[in-house]
Amino acid sequence: MHKKLLALILSLALCAGSAWPVISQAPPNAMVKQRQAAMTLLAKYYGPLAAMADGKAPLNKEVMARNAGYLDALSRMPWDGFAASTAAEKSRVLPAAYSEPAKFRSAQDEFIAAVANLLSLSKGGDGAAVKNAVGTVGETCGGCHKSFRQPS
Amino acid sequence: MHKKLLALILSLALCAGSAWPVISQAPPNAMVKQRQAAMTLLAKYYGPLAAMADGKAPLNKEVMARNAGYLDALSRMPWDGFAASTAAEKSRVLPAAYSEPAKFRSAQDEFIAAVANLLSLSKGGDGAAVKNAVGTVGETCGGCHKSFRQPS
Repeated sequence: MHKKLLALILSLALCAGSAWPVISQAPPNAMVKQRQAAMTLLAKYYGPLAAMADGKAPLNKEVMARNAGYLDALSRMPWDGFAASTAAEKSRVLPAAYSEPAKFRSAQDEFIAAVANLLSLSKGGDGAAVKNAVGTVGETCGGCHKSFRQPS
Repeated sequence: MHKKLLALILSLALCAGSAWPVISQAPPNAMVKQRQAAMTLLAKYYGPLAAMADGKAPLNKEVMARNAGYLDALSRMPWDGFAASTAAEKSRVLPAAYSEPAKFRSAQDEFIAAVANLLSLSKGGDGAAVKNAVGTVGETCGGCHKSFRQPS
């Protein structure tokens, strides 16, 4: 009930134009499925880059640039799936994602910017800079998860 | 058992270099989850474009171009998730996806090309051409599903 009330309050706040720029019309369970799908694919395409950055796999510039491009698109996809109507759905999201929208949005923006920077650098030839950029993406993933996702 | 034998045979065929160009090292159930995630997001971003093309929603060029870009990335993501090792996993895929790899690959390529064409046209100003391109994308989705996915 508490979560449903929160969802109602946030719905009203959203009507006032204060939060997410795109409100999906999908049912709440579909929105959760969609945002989790984006996270699944972010992990799929980030994993090999982290292995390269950590020296656990050889640097493959073609895969680096391809995955960076995929991540750039994917990094923008999860966020409208955290609409207020999803607050009562079962997932690992923490209440702070709904109660602290400015902080949540800021964490999203940091992640998106880190991926955009990685994409930009992946087109060049400096392996060290690209590896650093991969690390920064990982830090922005982890930072957001720490504040807004339950530990598994 | 039959499916596991098929998976083994196809694994050997893959070792001979006859099929997918990128073989993911993820466990089979993870590959199924990843490919289904890509399908979920393809539906998320295609749906609004189909509504615009069908006249059920007003043409929004900004959303059209954004979603076309997302679809261009997503259209390339599901296919390594149909590796031979996934043949025994529970999903709606039909055996033809494993037994007719050339036909399956051709259907994938038609879909990828249709989305790339949509992305190219979405940057221009011709609404009718864009709507046609959206329709062609839908036909290539449906054509592939008809041959390679169980009806729901």
